[in-house]
Amino acid sequence: MAAKYVSINNQLFLEEDARIGVSDLAMHRGYGIFDYFKVIDKRPIFIEDHFNRFYNSAKEMYLEVMLDRVELRKAIEELIEKNGVPTSGIKLLLTGGYSEDGYKMGKPNLIISQYPLNMQEENHFDMGMKLITYSHQRQLPFIKTIDYLQAVRLHPFMKENNADDVLYHNNGTITECPRANFFIVTGDKIITAANNILKGITRSKVLNFKIDGYTIIEKDFTLDELTNIHEAFITSTTQYAYPVAAIDGKLIGDGKIGPVTRQVREQLFKLIYADT
Amino acid sequence: MAAKYVSINNQLFLEEDARIGVSDLAMHRGYGIFDYFKVIDKRPIFIEDHFNRFYNSAKEMYLEVMLDRVELRKAIEELIEKNGVPTSGIKLLLTGGYSEDGYKMGKPNLIISQYPLNMQEENHFDMGMKLITYSHQRQLPFIKTIDYLQAVRLHPFMKENNADDVLYHNNGTITECPRANFFIVTGDKIITAANNILKGITRSKVLNFKIDGYTIIEKDFTLDELTNIHEAFITSTTQYAYPVAAIDGKLIGDGKIGPVTRQVREQLFKLIYADT
Repeated sequence: MAAKYVSINNQLFLEEDARIGVSDLAMHRGYGIFDYFKVIDKRPIFIEDHFNRFYNSAKEMYLEVMLDRVELRKAIEELIEKNGVPTSGIKLLLTGGYSEDGYKMGKPNLIISQYPLNMQEENHFDMGMKLITYSHQRQLPFIKTIDYLQAVRLHPFMKENNADDVLYHNNGTITECPRANFFIVTGDKIITAANNILKGITRSKVLNFKIDGYTIIEKDFTLDELTNIHEAFITSTTQYAYPVAAIDGKLIGDGKIGPVTRQVREQLFKLIYADT
Repeated sequence: MAAKYVSINNQLFLEEDARIGVSDLAMHRGYGIFDYFKVIDKRPIFIEDHFNRFYNSAKEMYLEVMLDRVELRKAIEELIEKNGVPTSGIKLLLTGGYSEDGYKMGKPNLIISQYPLNMQEENHFDMGMKLITYSHQRQLPFIKTIDYLQAVRLHPFMKENNADDVLYHNNGTITECPRANFFIVTGDKIITAANNILKGITRSKVLNFKIDGYTIIEKDFTLDELTNIHEAFITSTTQYAYPVAAIDGKLIGDGKIGPVTRQVREQLFKLIYADT
């Protein structure tokens, strides 16, 4: 649930009054982009990376952002202040705006929502997650659009298969999870897909890590290559680096967090708590 | 622009007050379905076909419609009555609803909007439309979802290329326009794509027409086959059957409406004005 106040076009509204007219192009045509980052004790994490991506997504979709970077940062700070919630996830949502005919773009609506986080829940986990593979290539994968039509539609499928999330592949070439990047550990390599994916901010940080005895590389790999891995993990803003225990019902390693995933997770935490 | 009143979850609101909370899953994840049909002098056109498709789209996306067919029809009639607009387009929009976490489905929101139509504008046209081809396969093509991410994003591309609409192909195999089906006339055949498309209501009517000297068939065909056609037209609820004058800058026939397109259009008008 969002915090008490929500910002719409740089005005604050109580969450229950935060409403958008039904002619918005997100409603009619699923047209919009977003970004999401964490704020820990009023300190936004990797904010420049998220802003770079947000403004780039907007540009790629021909959506103008009514606030520049300085103004956007100020709007976020005001929202945090007003809500009195120092540790949270912040979602920036930019829609196609009110459309005259339900098809053409209007003036984009900018919605900023704050979601309180519980740091105790954040910083630990009980067990690895179970993934189920599914063949689907997201459209415009390099842009952070609001298109999660397949991902949401797959919720019942995930439930039936006792899975926590989906792992997409494109005719056998593994790409990503709907909201996370995916890494495998095989031999002396840590590998994540190179193409047809959203290049996550957390993923980009991990690619720069040093893990003793391993090389970290971007390279496409296939479903067949999952038979030889000793670890797998996902990365995302929400979940940092999170171990994968099983894929399609087959256990990875012993199903517990492996030494590489643990190191990646620890390095991420160091970076996040050191980031200013 | 929508008429004065809009129905949200079976309650009437003034258009300017017709608003949806920002936590709706259409806003966050582009998750929703819709349908659109015409009402001519209070007579809804092909309503059973549109209802069949609407309830089927809802089912395919795991969205419950709060009204059954009888109740939905009543809600539409009340809206028409309240607006005092006897001839219009009616849009049924069903969203993923208010989501607790911005990802899971909520209770769907049902929005019914009425768009006044000018019958004089409806029933004539000046010239054929110009299409530009583009390689893109829509996801879940058989469901009428709100995903028009590519179509809307292509508006500047269309403008640059002086085109009125896009014609999608899937690596060379022609499928459909973003909001219409596509037919060609070649030799003694009238052909429309068979696979990976939304099977429009108007298309289904045309497939049952008798046109002297021609066979009407569903069969996939490629970009290469466009070199040998003497007519092309699109079909949709909005545009009935509408001639295509040029594709990728190349004139079809003499660029004017051809005899087959004219017959299809006339038969559609007969059917629509006879439909009860």
